[in-house]
Amino acid sequence: MTFLQKLQAAQKNQDALLCIGLDVDEQKIPSHLSTSPSPVLEFNKRIIEATYDLICAYKLNLAFYESLGEQGWRTVQQTLSLIPKDVLTIGDGKRGDIGNTSEHYVKVLFSDFGFDAATVNPYMGFDSVEPFILDSAKGVFVLALTSNPGSKDFQRVKVAGRPIYEKVVIAAKKWNTNGNIGLVVGATHPKELKSIRKIAPDLPLLIPGVGKQGGDLKSSVGFGCDKKGRMAIINVGRSIIYASSANDFASVARREAIKLRDQIRRHQEEFFG
Amino acid sequence: MTFLQKLQAAQKNQDALLCIGLDVDEQKIPSHLSTSPSPVLEFNKRIIEATYDLICAYKLNLAFYESLGEQGWRTVQQTLSLIPKDVLTIGDGKRGDIGNTSEHYVKVLFSDFGFDAATVNPYMGFDSVEPFILDSAKGVFVLALTSNPGSKDFQRVKVAGRPIYEKVVIAAKKWNTNGNIGLVVGATHPKELKSIRKIAPDLPLLIPGVGKQGGDLKSSVGFGCDKKGRMAIINVGRSIIYASSANDFASVARREAIKLRDQIRRHQEEFFG
Repeated sequence: MTFLQKLQAAQKNQDALLCIGLDVDEQKIPSHLSTSPSPVLEFNKRIIEATYDLICAYKLNLAFYESLGEQGWRTVQQTLSLIPKDVLTIGDGKRGDIGNTSEHYVKVLFSDFGFDAATVNPYMGFDSVEPFILDSAKGVFVLALTSNPGSKDFQRVKVAGRPIYEKVVIAAKKWNTNGNIGLVVGATHPKELKSIRKIAPDLPLLIPGVGKQGGDLKSSVGFGCDKKGRMAIINVGRSIIYASSANDFASVARREAIKLRDQIRRHQEEFFG
Repeated sequence: MTFLQKLQAAQKNQDALLCIGLDVDEQKIPSHLSTSPSPVLEFNKRIIEATYDLICAYKLNLAFYESLGEQGWRTVQQTLSLIPKDVLTIGDGKRGDIGNTSEHYVKVLFSDFGFDAATVNPYMGFDSVEPFILDSAKGVFVLALTSNPGSKDFQRVKVAGRPIYEKVVIAAKKWNTNGNIGLVVGATHPKELKSIRKIAPDLPLLIPGVGKQGGDLKSSVGFGCDKKGRMAIINVGRSIIYASSANDFASVARREAIKLRDQIRRHQEEFFG
């Protein structure tokens, strides 16, 4: 099964574009979990059990797991083993290095951990991205226009009237010979999201920035989806997983995820009928 | 002691600009080490013992250590514990993410591992780099113009006659309020190295690409150093550490490192008297 088929199946079967960011900070999880031998794993387990049927993907930002020290590696593996096979898993490390080195990141993300997809940073160009895209069963989300304020510093710099992030979009389309490339586009840039979707009508778009970062959900759906109202993966992290810091955190997370999933469905209906 | 003071001391005391890249691939180390409980650590130990007095820094590319799985984390820590305190250590992960996430990478690299410096990818802009530069005791090498072929894809794209990598250099100078920013510039681009040194006369430059990648040593020294013939950190990895795959690998690595150190000294003499 190709990455694209798996993504299509996940979005169709669960009727969901929502992705939950399991970017779990040990300092921020409910204090009653601290007696567990692996509080972050226990937290993830409870969140996954409460939400897996509502979403198309989980995204794990690797920085948060590296931050756990030696235990981090195993926590990623154990977390992934809890996720049902029909839900996509995205390893968000924004990696990229010379080819010889990127190959090691590919091994780690796709073979050792077994993520379905990874995020990569395009600054070092094609040979830094190439090792990630060789296997059509694995997806690669190339950073185009990120959700943070610093996206203005280089990504938005214009070359002959066209911002660098559009050059990345055009390059990604050209590189997409195995049909497994997608893009990262922040929800905080609705107008640009619309123009990127025009340039790349079919590519999967991973859209972070809804929630704590203030990105708009309606435009993320309306401008981020393809013509069929799919292929946008809308990532929400903190505002779901930390919605409650009490004993009920998992059920509150479920309630928040249902609310978002249903809002997304209404926007899909509105824009794509 | 600031990062800059530590770098100056290391280059002066050892009279060396050479940095050895401990980018160690388990598949490539001498087979007689495979009986060790941690072959990569044993390899690093022997290389460090044979070379620490010849160089100013060791650079560990994190991809190679992540590739070791669970053991990788400990191998980094154990390797760093073997390096004398007056030799710089650079954690080469080319990280970068939104501020809230970059903070975790900073914790990992500078607190948990205790590297003296790290490499960062500038694509996500200032707030992705900022957490790395807050502590003047720690250095940050921002990717400007990398040694690989893909550097042409985005880094060399010109904006009003000025390539993006120069915009990165200018931004890095502006961001350098704590005096701890340096740049990564590949040895494979001698002309551009010269022009970057003109724009940033004082910043430390980490220069990979000599050796296997074909970068030129003479121009790396002549164009990469500041006016005093310092502040270039010339990284060589594979052509030193894999110079022999037999029992004598450490002594052959020492011989290669001496050869390179002395060539660098001759070029320093030639250019800076």
